[in-house]
Amino acid sequence: MKLTIERAALLKSLAHVQSVVERRTTIPILSNVKLEGRSGRLSLNATDMDLDIAETVPADISQPGATTAPAHTFYDIVRKLPEGSQVEIEFKPDDGQMTLRSGRSKFSLSCLPVEDFPVLSGGEFPFSFTLTSSELKALIDRTRFAISTEETRYYLNGIYLHAATGSDGAMLRAVATDGHRLARAEVTMPEGASGMPGIIIPRKTVAEVRKLIDETDGEITVSLSETKLKFAFADAELTSKLIDGTFPDYERVIPTDNDKVLDVDCKSFAQAVDRVSAISTEKSRAIKLSIERGTATLSASSPESGSAVEEIEATYDSTPLEIGFNSRYLLDILSQVEGETARFAMADAASPTVVREVADSSAIYVLMPMRV
Amino acid sequence: MKLTIERAALLKSLAHVQSVVERRTTIPILSNVKLEGRSGRLSLNATDMDLDIAETVPADISQPGATTAPAHTFYDIVRKLPEGSQVEIEFKPDDGQMTLRSGRSKFSLSCLPVEDFPVLSGGEFPFSFTLTSSELKALIDRTRFAISTEETRYYLNGIYLHAATGSDGAMLRAVATDGHRLARAEVTMPEGASGMPGIIIPRKTVAEVRKLIDETDGEITVSLSETKLKFAFADAELTSKLIDGTFPDYERVIPTDNDKVLDVDCKSFAQAVDRVSAISTEKSRAIKLSIERGTATLSASSPESGSAVEEIEATYDSTPLEIGFNSRYLLDILSQVEGETARFAMADAASPTVVREVADSSAIYVLMPMRV
Repeated sequence: MKLTIERAALLKSLAHVQSVVERRTTIPILSNVKLEGRSGRLSLNATDMDLDIAETVPADISQPGATTAPAHTFYDIVRKLPEGSQVEIEFKPDDGQMTLRSGRSKFSLSCLPVEDFPVLSGGEFPFSFTLTSSELKALIDRTRFAISTEETRYYLNGIYLHAATGSDGAMLRAVATDGHRLARAEVTMPEGASGMPGIIIPRKTVAEVRKLIDETDGEITVSLSETKLKFAFADAELTSKLIDGTFPDYERVIPTDNDKVLDVDCKSFAQAVDRVSAISTEKSRAIKLSIERGTATLSASSPESGSAVEEIEATYDSTPLEIGFNSRYLLDILSQVEGETARFAMADAASPTVVREVADSSAIYVLMPMRV
Repeated sequence: MKLTIERAALLKSLAHVQSVVERRTTIPILSNVKLEGRSGRLSLNATDMDLDIAETVPADISQPGATTAPAHTFYDIVRKLPEGSQVEIEFKPDDGQMTLRSGRSKFSLSCLPVEDFPVLSGGEFPFSFTLTSSELKALIDRTRFAISTEETRYYLNGIYLHAATGSDGAMLRAVATDGHRLARAEVTMPEGASGMPGIIIPRKTVAEVRKLIDETDGEITVSLSETKLKFAFADAELTSKLIDGTFPDYERVIPTDNDKVLDVDCKSFAQAVDRVSAISTEKSRAIKLSIERGTATLSASSPESGSAVEEIEATYDSTPLEIGFNSRYLLDILSQVEGETARFAMADAASPTVVREVADSSAIYVLMPMRV
């Protein structure tokens, strides 16, 4: 293999693929990126055996071929080359070394045989649909913060993506929960998704696909089977195994008849929560919300530091209520509520509270109160 | 005590003083900042018993007084108040609480008696001189990277500041070393410094004073005794204990007759070192410099990743030499060499190398080679 490529283009693709490669792995070839030069393009491939990324980038290929090279070292070198430089890459199968030349620098990287590189991408994907980058972004951003990190409940360590019937008809829904809070976001069911199985997308896959979305504004094709999922971008493809488990019946925990309704200005409420939480203890992060007609009062106290209280304007018509929340969880939710007004629908101080944007039903959040 | 103060002014001073307060301390009052309102100014004071910072800021004092409040919590609150707001602070000795009001927020902070707050600032300072902020900045920046972190040789855990005679006459010199490299910077001896004892300024003090320099462009008055040091800025004063030890006779390790002289363009040499070091092993960071008439070649190799080589233009007239360095140490030094050309004066592959800027003798660096 012999080729010349622009540093900037190579760097961008390498940044994506090396991010999938684990720093510590006991299987040497998993530290490597697979490189293949053919028909005017260089393809790069990396995997951790659960998640696989493939990307192609234009290159001037003077001799087709393929090899695998240490991903992080390769990335580090290209990153440190001067801006605007051209990179010449040559792999000679005889000595098992890949040579990289740019300006007066020359690097030799130890390679491993391309035949040993594991292939994950294959298999059948009976369902396939397209989402705009902003749709996929919304599904992820509005739910990923609630993904559980508890490994014992592994089926909560991802986003549950599935077909559902919402108030606006057939929807594609994303749900995540850690038992303390739940986030549900949905978009209109795209063509090709109906009948799809419910799948749980692992946390790492969510993070990697989210990075790729930031650099695209086109459509993304999502293909899936019972066990695998593929995101196809213009020049990149991410294939992932799914979490093999059953996501709990989350509908049960979303209350539908909470009748104590509080409307607040989302931004100023979030700022007040942030301020008052300066006093709450590091451990519990608890703040208290005392609501009566027309006002809500946030307060917190800690034996060490003292107490805090802030009153905010609110719309509320029910009987007075005192309810406690974890301030960090509350801020996570409020940071995802777009638009001006956040609506809290509560039953009592011990039951789940529903939070959403008044004018937008595409995302709802459920938060368990804390005893304060 | 009762006063009103602008959030921005309070925040700036609090940021400085809370930085001295240790997160974990077993003595409760050391978590607090001392506040004293008097004659149109609020003074803030914090200490860790080795280092003490005092700062004053204009405030509208309606009732003079003093107390101490939890520094990090206080800072966190003020940071989260809206920009442009006014803060009202009131301390009532009867209930031991300090009240902070701003807009619709109200905070009560648990206070500790101001009488219990330790005073470090006192004492005699027989020597006193002024430095411009850029002089003090140069003395610190050019040496602090070489401060040792090894606690067993505690007398190397700081910058050694002392009077010395250089080629340009009487100088004020800063030196730091960790046994692998040594950095020496000097400025013309300021009036009042001659006859001063050699002192070792602890690492934390160096860091805190460096932060304050960034926000000043005036002169700084340095006062010192055998055991204490004080930096006086326009509105802030930093007083520190000194390291009680003897700094080694560093002059002995600075070679004076290294006759193999290599001149390189500092910036492109540093970039080449950075690139080639992408290959050197994480642990040793070793790179090799092979020098002959007119060129220097940087190289590195590691059993896992491969090898790297880069040639750079150089001025060199002596017999060829191969010498190894720790690439990180080399980059630390090169990042401090201002001006275009860095000069390496070497004896052989096993003896200390001297690095300096060709046109500037105010700083020199000594680097021990590595066997490669």
